Amino acid sequence: MGPRWKGKNSEAIALADPMSKITARLQSSLIQSETEGFLSGCVVLLSVEPEQIDLLNRACFGRPIITTDKDKQWFQISLEEAFYLCHSLKCLKILDENKCAKNGNELWECMKSKKKTFPEFYVAYSNLKKKNWVVRSGSQYGVDFVAYRHHPSLVHSEYAVLVRSECDGDYDKNFRLRVWSDFQCTVRLCGSVAKTLLVLNINTNGCNEVSLSHLDHCSVEERTITRWSPEQCREDLTLVKGGISYI
Amino acid sequence: MGPRWKGKNSEAIALADPMSKITARLQSSLIQSETEGFLSGCVVLLSVEPEQIDLLNRACFGRPIITTDKDKQWFQISLEEAFYLCHSLKCLKILDENKCAKNGNELWECMKSKKKTFPEFYVAYSNLKKKNWVVRSGSQYGVDFVAYRHHPSLVHSEYAVLVRSECDGDYDKNFRLRVWSDFQCTVRLCGSVAKTLLVLNINTNGCNEVSLSHLDHCSVEERTITRWSPEQCREDLTLVKGGISYI
Repeated sequence: MGPRWKGKNSEAIALADPMSKITARLQSSLIQSETEGFLSGCVVLLSVEPEQIDLLNRACFGRPIITTDKDKQWFQISLEEAFYLCHSLKCLKILDENKCAKNGNELWECMKSKKKTFPEFYVAYSNLKKKNWVVRSGSQYGVDFVAYRHHPSLVHSEYAVLVRSECDGDYDKNFRLRVWSDFQCTVRLCGSVAKTLLVLNINTNGCNEVSLSHLDHCSVEERTITRWSPEQCREDLTLVKGGISYI
Repeated sequence: MGPRWKGKNSEAIALADPMSKITARLQSSLIQSETEGFLSGCVVLLSVEPEQIDLLNRACFGRPIITTDKDKQWFQISLEEAFYLCHSLKCLKILDENKCAKNGNELWECMKSKKKTFPEFYVAYSNLKKKNWVVRSGSQYGVDFVAYRHHPSLVHSEYAVLVRSECDGDYDKNFRLRVWSDFQCTVRLCGSVAKTLLVLNINTNGCNEVSLSHLDHCSVEERTITRWSPEQCREDLTLVKGGISYI
């Protein structure tokens, strides 16, 4: 299943303005204005310039929020987005509730304490972001993320992403796809909304857990899962119409 | 969401011939012919008279199978169906691979060894059957069972059923709905195929496991799960059009 562009010129518009360049513009703008984010519950709030709101929207990070504060424009981003801007793109400082800047390790531990799946989700998120996918919450489809080839206004999301951990004894983290019925349910739902199920297995390669100091040791195994249609490939190698996937 | 009948007269046909009566006819026919079932892998095979094939089809147990054997007509039923006919309706004897009749306990242990979720699935299955629901495999929708008000030729299935165990430390059984994303995925899929998600929690009330001698101590907690629409009930109590469920 290829990308499903929205409208005629969307593919050309996307090609002319690659996501990598939009992200680079956002990065340099945030560095220039020394932008700070404030941890607030399970999100991070940014107070930003109008130009940055446009860039955040175009790079598809978080969402603008409306407040009674007329002087400041606020933007709300997720923990994974915040840590990516802070740690990977190094264009955001994050302050805690006491307005103290947090260093990398403090921030990692803090986010882990707010969301127990944060370490694995961050590895999955940053893996896709580094490949210039637009990554958004998948809660609408009951998955962890959805991935778009470019901005959601131009293209439908292509992948429904589930994050799995290869750590031993990780039952308490309650990841998905432990039973066949869950596979059947998820693959069927993905099919009905024209997405491919992408399972990201986070492998710590011997470490007990995903830690910030060992992020580089983690590997991400990417598997797409599709329904197998017995008609496909049965007699010849031409395209099978109406099947779920194509050769 | 009410039943979705197939065609104009289906509801009247179903009302005129209740499932309880069809099942009673099947029961007495199987008793009269002293029908035997043969355990074969994870199914049970019955050799039956043509009249019983019709009754099994109408009561919606298993499915007929085609063999090269011209003298006998064969029917394949699931472990839950077989145990229900044998233990609850007492109209079927089940023989093992050596053609020896198995008593209740032997059969229970044997089926448990073939399918580790059998005890909880049987409690869920028999609970619905006793209420005259037609219960079939839900694998098409990634759930454990689907439940129909009457024969599937007359009505669409109304409930997508997931079985959960309340036993402590039952992680190895790998039941579903441990994380929100699974709820979201399952509820969304159920909505798209116009079924209500019915979760059956099997409670052993203090016993370590579901055993045949304590079947009567098990209770089944039935919960339907639907998406909550904020528009519903907001200002008045009239029906909300386009919502997922109705008041």
